[in-house]
Amino acid sequence: MSSDLFFIGIDGGGTKCRARLEDSEGTLLGEGVSGPANIMRDSELAKTSIQEAISLAVASANQTLANKQKISVSQCVVGAGLAGANIAGAKSEFEAWAHPFHSLYVLSDLHAACLGAHDGASGAAIIIGTGSSGTLWHNNAFHDVGGHGFPIGDKASGAWLGLKAVKHTLLCLDELAPMDALALEVCNALQTNDINHIVSKCAAFNTHHYAALVEAMLPMLYTKDETVCAMFEEGANYIETMAQRLLQQHDLPLAMIGGLSNVYSTYFSDSVKARLVACKATPQQGAIHYAKTACFQLKGEK
Amino acid sequence: MSSDLFFIGIDGGGTKCRARLEDSEGTLLGEGVSGPANIMRDSELAKTSIQEAISLAVASANQTLANKQKISVSQCVVGAGLAGANIAGAKSEFEAWAHPFHSLYVLSDLHAACLGAHDGASGAAIIIGTGSSGTLWHNNAFHDVGGHGFPIGDKASGAWLGLKAVKHTLLCLDELAPMDALALEVCNALQTNDINHIVSKCAAFNTHHYAALVEAMLPMLYTKDETVCAMFEEGANYIETMAQRLLQQHDLPLAMIGGLSNVYSTYFSDSVKARLVACKATPQQGAIHYAKTACFQLKGEK
Repeated sequence: MSSDLFFIGIDGGGTKCRARLEDSEGTLLGEGVSGPANIMRDSELAKTSIQEAISLAVASANQTLANKQKISVSQCVVGAGLAGANIAGAKSEFEAWAHPFHSLYVLSDLHAACLGAHDGASGAAIIIGTGSSGTLWHNNAFHDVGGHGFPIGDKASGAWLGLKAVKHTLLCLDELAPMDALALEVCNALQTNDINHIVSKCAAFNTHHYAALVEAMLPMLYTKDETVCAMFEEGANYIETMAQRLLQQHDLPLAMIGGLSNVYSTYFSDSVKARLVACKATPQQGAIHYAKTACFQLKGEK
Repeated sequence: MSSDLFFIGIDGGGTKCRARLEDSEGTLLGEGVSGPANIMRDSELAKTSIQEAISLAVASANQTLANKQKISVSQCVVGAGLAGANIAGAKSEFEAWAHPFHSLYVLSDLHAACLGAHDGASGAAIIIGTGSSGTLWHNNAFHDVGGHGFPIGDKASGAWLGLKAVKHTLLCLDELAPMDALALEVCNALQTNDINHIVSKCAAFNTHHYAALVEAMLPMLYTKDETVCAMFEEGANYIETMAQRLLQQHDLPLAMIGGLSNVYSTYFSDSVKARLVACKATPQQGAIHYAKTACFQLKGEK
């Protein structure tokens, strides 16, 4: 374990994969961004995306290095925080990958984000964007709450809100509920008020398509539309319960991450608000922290 | 249009396809049952299932007929009530099939069931089983309400109830809600109380898997479990609204069809209960009615 090793942190989600390349001192040498890296949804695509993001980060670092100093992926210790790695089966299957790196340490995107947010120290994190989940990192162990994916879990998330809005719109178009502003906004966002067109469109929807509808809902939240407010309040109650559950046993800070974190943070009770902290570092840095710890631990054990 | 023509009615759903073969007088000659025939989900499989069910029905009829009288599929006018045929795109694509029958008339499974229930006369029908949807047949036109598929529509259905039960169970296992009898029953039905096992199982769930959980919920409905009662009441409110909407403009009868029809019928208001009638005939007979009408109409137009 010496200066001929480099460290790469991966933050891989449903749409993007980001790589950060550091030397052993923690100096940023290069970065790369590629496509989806959800190992539950498509692990082969995830491998391609990870290799691409890493190639870009290494190539970017090598641009300024002399030939003799150029970095090879075989010198890189990779920590990969990946969507889907919370599923034990998906994780162990992925870890069997005959990858070209020095070594590969896999954790969930949530865990990498939590380690990054608190710079490796104990603390809780809730990710609330397209999906939703929470974790507490304490005594060298993670304690997860929520998540579980769409549509069975990920309550309060963008996908959950968008699905609620679509269901509501169909009720209105079926004249089983009075037509209202939210239904009109959803029709506008979907560019049709034909119920069959909506059904056909939604048949091809994934979580990101549903979450994209939140953009049309947010202005209505701020103008206090009753239907929209009720949906966000139901979501906020869930996130508050999750936060209380994560924070109940230890006096630790909470970091909120993701596109809806600011929206839901405003609903928190005072006791939860008092624990909120800003993120200290990125999920990629959290993944590097994890890989470094695991790597040095292994070395120490030898 | 004469005695050398035969009539086949198809009732094709997500798990089974049933065929009924009649002569021009309406005498039952043979029946056949095969696999799934949802043209939205898998139209090629639906074609295979339809051909298989028809072959079985024809073979069964031919067993008792002399060689000269044996029926060929090319003599058969087929009316096919198919799940997914409510989606215009799926229906028109399916109708382009170079089928081996005399002719093929496609309608949705809901419409075939409604025509069968009222023996071709005006009336409303609600199908409430794995899915949910309603229609009114009046003045030679159908007026549909609800449906739209899982998870955006099919409110109150078995799939909808089962998903609600799974979501509730995950909340309890996450300790975000107190553990209760429903969560225990769901864990029992899924043969695990490990949250990761449940998530993995549900990742492969279709509507039928979710609907299968209703079997565990029904005894709790009868013993008045609060959580379960609240779920069924939410569903019942939806079905009541749907029934009122179907019946509001005309004094017509309502037929309830599907595995949950008896459960939800008990919740109906007195005014809806007063319109309830038993089904006069099967969806296959409804599909034959549709095909005969269309076939003779075409002949009349020539």
